[in-house]
Parts: sequence; structure tokens; C-alpha cells
Amino acid sequence: MHKDVAVIGAGMIRFGELFDKSVDNMIEEAYINCLQSVDKGIDPKEIEAAWLGSAYERSGVSLAVPTGLFDIPITRVENGCSTGSNSFSNACFAVKAGIYDVVLVCGAEKMRDEAGGLIARAAAKSGIDMWRYRARTMPAFFGLRGTRHFHEFGSKREHLAMISVKNHHNGFLYPYAHYRFECTIDQVLNAPLVSWPLGLYDSCPITDGACCVLICSGEIARKFTDAPVFWQGCGNSVDSWMRGFDANFIGFPATVNAAKQAYKMAGITAKDVQVAEVHDCFTITELLDYEDLGFCKKGEGHKMIEEGIVTLEGSLPINPSGGLIAKGHPIGASGVAQIDEIFNQLRGTAGKVQVPDAEIGLQHNIGLGRGATGSVSVVNILRR
Amino acid sequence: MHKDVAVIGAGMIRFGELFDKSVDNMIEEAYINCLQSVDKGIDPKEIEAAWLGSAYERSGVSLAVPTGLFDIPITRVENGCSTGSNSFSNACFAVKAGIYDVVLVCGAEKMRDEAGGLIARAAAKSGIDMWRYRARTMPAFFGLRGTRHFHEFGSKREHLAMISVKNHHNGFLYPYAHYRFECTIDQVLNAPLVSWPLGLYDSCPITDGACCVLICSGEIARKFTDAPVFWQGCGNSVDSWMRGFDANFIGFPATVNAAKQAYKMAGITAKDVQVAEVHDCFTITELLDYEDLGFCKKGEGHKMIEEGIVTLEGSLPINPSGGLIAKGHPIGASGVAQIDEIFNQLRGTAGKVQVPDAEIGLQHNIGLGRGATGSVSVVNILRR
Repeated sequence: MHKDVAVIGAGMIRFGELFDKSVDNMIEEAYINCLQSVDKGIDPKEIEAAWLGSAYERSGVSLAVPTGLFDIPITRVENGCSTGSNSFSNACFAVKAGIYDVVLVCGAEKMRDEAGGLIARAAAKSGIDMWRYRARTMPAFFGLRGTRHFHEFGSKREHLAMISVKNHHNGFLYPYAHYRFECTIDQVLNAPLVSWPLGLYDSCPITDGACCVLICSGEIARKFTDAPVFWQGCGNSVDSWMRGFDANFIGFPATVNAAKQAYKMAGITAKDVQVAEVHDCFTITELLDYEDLGFCKKGEGHKMIEEGIVTLEGSLPINPSGGLIAKGHPIGASGVAQIDEIFNQLRGTAGKVQVPDAEIGLQHNIGLGRGATGSVSVVNILRR
Repeated sequence: MHKDVAVIGAGMIRFGELFDKSVDNMIEEAYINCLQSVDKGIDPKEIEAAWLGSAYERSGVSLAVPTGLFDIPITRVENGCSTGSNSFSNACFAVKAGIYDVVLVCGAEKMRDEAGGLIARAAAKSGIDMWRYRARTMPAFFGLRGTRHFHEFGSKREHLAMISVKNHHNGFLYPYAHYRFECTIDQVLNAPLVSWPLGLYDSCPITDGACCVLICSGEIARKFTDAPVFWQGCGNSVDSWMRGFDANFIGFPATVNAAKQAYKMAGITAKDVQVAEVHDCFTITELLDYEDLGFCKKGEGHKMIEEGIVTLEGSLPINPSGGLIAKGHPIGASGVAQIDEIFNQLRGTAGKVQVPDAEIGLQHNIGLGRGATGSVSVVNILRR
């Protein structure tokens, strides 16, 4: 029998443009918040190993220095925008294998200390290919999926705007979001265009942030909390934009595969998911996620928002934390922050964005690899 | 019961200054060699997941593109010079947990396509600190350990030279080494100085390379080979140069800790190790490894080489493949190539550098984190 893996604590910091904080400052704050979130307390000496998810911080030392977690195993994982969620999965493997009993997972990214943010650096480094000098920016890549979805399925810019309004509304209620303001459909539609059909409010900001979660083997979880949440499984799929040209433009095969793997490992189907934090770097990404994760049929994503299913009050609330669009997208931190939110949702400690009585939650990222969006997707499933 | 983890195949490429090969070319070649090394054959479709160890290649896509391993989970791990060995450990966790049955681990690094090599890029990126503009180069850092060891324990430059002669001799015999020539004590001592007491032949080159290994759950290992080798455990320890100033100058506490963890997990002691591939970015590093890994007492490392214990014919052959000094040090590939060599040594397929009848082998890296050498160490132990 392999071990159960339990999440026993999670600590966020307020995401934002944190020019006054170094990456060490951010990690330290998230780490302390995480320790303090453990209901029955935890001694840092009980932490046996750690994983750092970061696209730009290098080596385990970057986590040891701000936390003081020296002399224990620390692995750094990077996997495009799926970095944080992939780190979490790897930490779960080690606990499930019985290698370590109590493990910290930290996601952290300093995005704003370079001109244009690290996104520009990421794009510049993603390899030379024929697309590089041809407006191959992330809004352009995702924008093409928007126009294609409109053409194929009759969705409209207004649907994307409704997703933006929903996520900004949730972010307004969520205390750790980068953007905490409400907006209207008209504001979204009339905002400056970034890349048709995506405007300013359809796009996630460039954000600094860190988040930590603590996991342990199921056997000892109740030593730390009476309300553990259990990891049920994960999926991870790697794709390339050049492989499936047509399929890729109306969705992300990597997400479809990662979700299938995760549902199989967890022994559930998409219908069992009651709350989800999904990758919404742009509004169109979230719309495609609805379809790719199996929450609706291909081509019906816009109905999910039109019918209010994915709002806080709907039957399947998506991105209660405001998603990347309102909460922000500090790459390595994003996936870990989604785990934090699902953990709190399933425990009933999600505050003003709490959804009623969810037992199973899903977390999802999709990211860039080799310069192509949508190339790496990771899904994790939690259950209380 | 958790699963046993078996190594069932390994494929190297000839390391070197491979200006005519891209990182994709190198990975493809190592991958094909690895597939072909599986005695009873393997279908790539049987590979369920993969780990990429690379300091500079980004995301799982960098492994999927040259191998065609799309649609399966790929994790990228980075951990300074311990990147390759840390990737291997993480892959072993997932197999031991029963998550995946057959897994590929690839280490790869393109070091020579930038002026000065990626080492210069690594140093430049390792963070701003007080040492950065004060000759904080890697030869200088390691050189200080040499002078300190000489002062404390009576070792001499000649001892370091003997390590260089040994590793070049092994590399001369090892078909995949970057440097395949013999050298003499006099040549080492009279070579241009890099940073006292380290000369040109005391230093590893800047090398391009890739290596792949295949692991699977023990239950199915004999489907692939009659001579599997079993992973017994690992250690990983993170340190900071500023923490233990004195201890750090006569050894690396991170190696000591990582070795202790690995011996404990494997249920062995240092005395049980019969062959080892250890991190010799410089000759002094290897001398300190002898002590830190527990092969001799602190301060007696130079006797290990003086007495011939660590030569191919000695009782504890170290770096039969020529080590980083002769084989080369393509960062992410280095640790995986060490696993490849231990795998072959334990199976009796190590060719001209075969040591007699070893049952237990050790692999070790120590690397840089946050600009400080010796900050991350990983040890893996294999047994036939």
C-alpha cells in the first residue's frame, strides 16, 4: 500500500507589484504564513524535504536561504507556467513513496524587477524559431484561439468579457489578489486592445508573488490538523504547438491529456469536480479550459459563463480566487497558490469567496515550452 | 510495500565541444543509445513519464521535441551542478510511489555555444552579493579549499596531480570522455595555473553532453533485462557558503549530509561502497569527496590517492569514467552520466574501465547555489 498524501497547511502573500520586496522577502512571508496555518502547529524541524517551483530562481538554495531549511533535500522544478503545479506533484510522489513524511512546497517568482517584466525575458529566451520575430507574443498566440473559437462555435467577445467580470469580482473579494476591483462588461469591451480579441482586462498582469503549502503522509495528517485535504492524483502532458495545428487552435490537447491522466489516477470524472482553479492567463484560456477539462463539450465553453455555472454562486465555481487575471500570475507561485485556494475551499476556510460544501477540487496550469503556448499542462486533484 | 526501482538501460554520447550538434541532436542520440541498451528491447510507447535534468534547457518540451515523447508527463529539474542526480532521484520517487512503471531520465547541457561557455553565464546570474566582483570564480573558490587542506593536513599539490593523472588515465580508456589522453605528474604540475593551487589539468573542461537512463518498477525489470541494477536510496542537502565558514573550507557539509541520508536510506555504510563516481570539478573537490563521503577520515583524503586505493586497480576505484576532469562536465548531463557508469560497472559492462565484481556503487554531485560553491549535494546509491 502506498501512502496517502495530505495537505495540512498553506500560506499566501498578497500578490502584486512588490518592488519593496525581494524574492527572499516574499518566500519568507509565505513560509511563515504557511507554518501558522497549521491548526495544531508544526515545528520547522519536522519538515524533512522541500520543493521549490520557480521559473527563474535557481537551485534549492533559493528556498533554503529565506526559510532556514538547510541540510534537508530541496529540489527545484521548472516547467513553464505549470512550474508550481508540477513541483507540487513531484513532492506528492516523494511522500506517497514513503521517502519523506513532511514536505514543504514553495512557488515563488519575482517578475517586476526587470524592465517589461520577466515575461519579456522568458519570450526572448524561448529559443529561435520562425515565429520569433513575427509578433509571436503571448497575447497574439492566445488571441488567435479567440477568433478561431468565435468562428467555429459562435462565441463572442462578450463571453470573454463575462469571464473577466467574474474573475475581477472574485479577486475583489479575495484578500491576496493583485487586482482588487470590480469591472463591468462595458469596461472590459472598451478597454485598450492588446491583441484582438483580447483587451487589457482579458489579460493577466505581470505580478510578483510567493505561496507555500505543507504536505505530509496521510497517517500523520491528524497530528497537524483535524481538517486535512488529500491529494488524489495528477496529470502532466507535454505538447508542441507545431504538432496539432488544427486541434491546438480550438483548445489545448495538453490540458485534455493532463486532465484524463488526473481523473484516472484520482478515480473520478470531470463531473465530480465541484470547484476548480484553472489557468486563465487570458479570458479565452479559461473558456477553453472549461472544454478541455471536460466540464462541458467542445464548443460550449461560452455557455458555462453565459449560464452562470462558473460563478461563485454557480454549480461549478471556477477561479474563486480571481484566477490569474485578478490574482496575478507570478509563474512558479501561480500553481501553488491554486493549490492553496483549493485546500481552503475544501476545508471551508476560503472566506468571502467560499463556495458551498465542495468535496473535490481541481487545479490546472498550462504553459509555454520552447516558445509555444499551451505546450505543458499539469492538473492536480484534491479531496477533503 | 513500496516498489523497488530498477535501472534497466543507459545511453551516453561522446562528450566534448560539440559545435556541430544542437542540444536536440545530443538528446536524440543519447535517447536512441539508451533504448538500444535495453537487453530485451523496449518500445518507446512503454515509457510512461520522463524527467529532464538541465541547468539551462527549459520545460519538459525540451525533452519531448528530440525524443517524440509527447503527451506524457515530463518534469524538468534544476539544482546547480547536482541537476542530473537530483532529476534521477525524483524519477525514482515516482516509480517507488507506484505512479509510473517505466520512466526515462535525461540529462543534457549545451555549454559551448556561448562565448566563454555557460559557466560564465551561470556565474553572472548567480545573484549579486559581496563576492561577485572580487574574483569569485569557481577555480578561486575551490583553490582556497586546496590551500586550506594543505595547511591543515599536510597534503600537497602532488596529491592533486595524482588525482588528475588517475582521472585522465581512466578517461583515456573510457570511450565517451571529452579528453582521452594520458598525462604525467610533471605535466600537471607544470601546466598553466588557473587559481593556485589548481592548474589547467586540475580543472574540468567546459563540455557539451547528454545522457539518458531508463528506470522501471522492480517487478517488471526482468521483462527488459536479466541484469537490472536497483536504486537503493538517495540524499540531498542544501547549504550556504556563509553558514559554516570554517567547516566549509576543509570540506563540504552538504556532501556529508547527503551521504548520510543516502547511506541510511540504502541501509549501508560508506565501507560497503565498492565503486563511485564523484564530483571532481577540480582535483581538490575529489580529494574532499573521499573524506566527506566517509571513504576515509577527515584530513586523510590525500592518502587515498597516494596509496592507490582509488585507482582502477585499487580497492575503491573512484571515477572510473575519468570523472568530470576527463569526461567533462555538461552540468545537467554529468549526474546522469555518473548513473550510467555505475549501472555499467555493477552489470560488468563497463569495458576497459571495468572494476572487478562491484555490487554496490555510489554517485555524487556537489554544486553551486546562489553563487556559492558546495551549496547543493546529491548522492544516489545503486546495487546490482
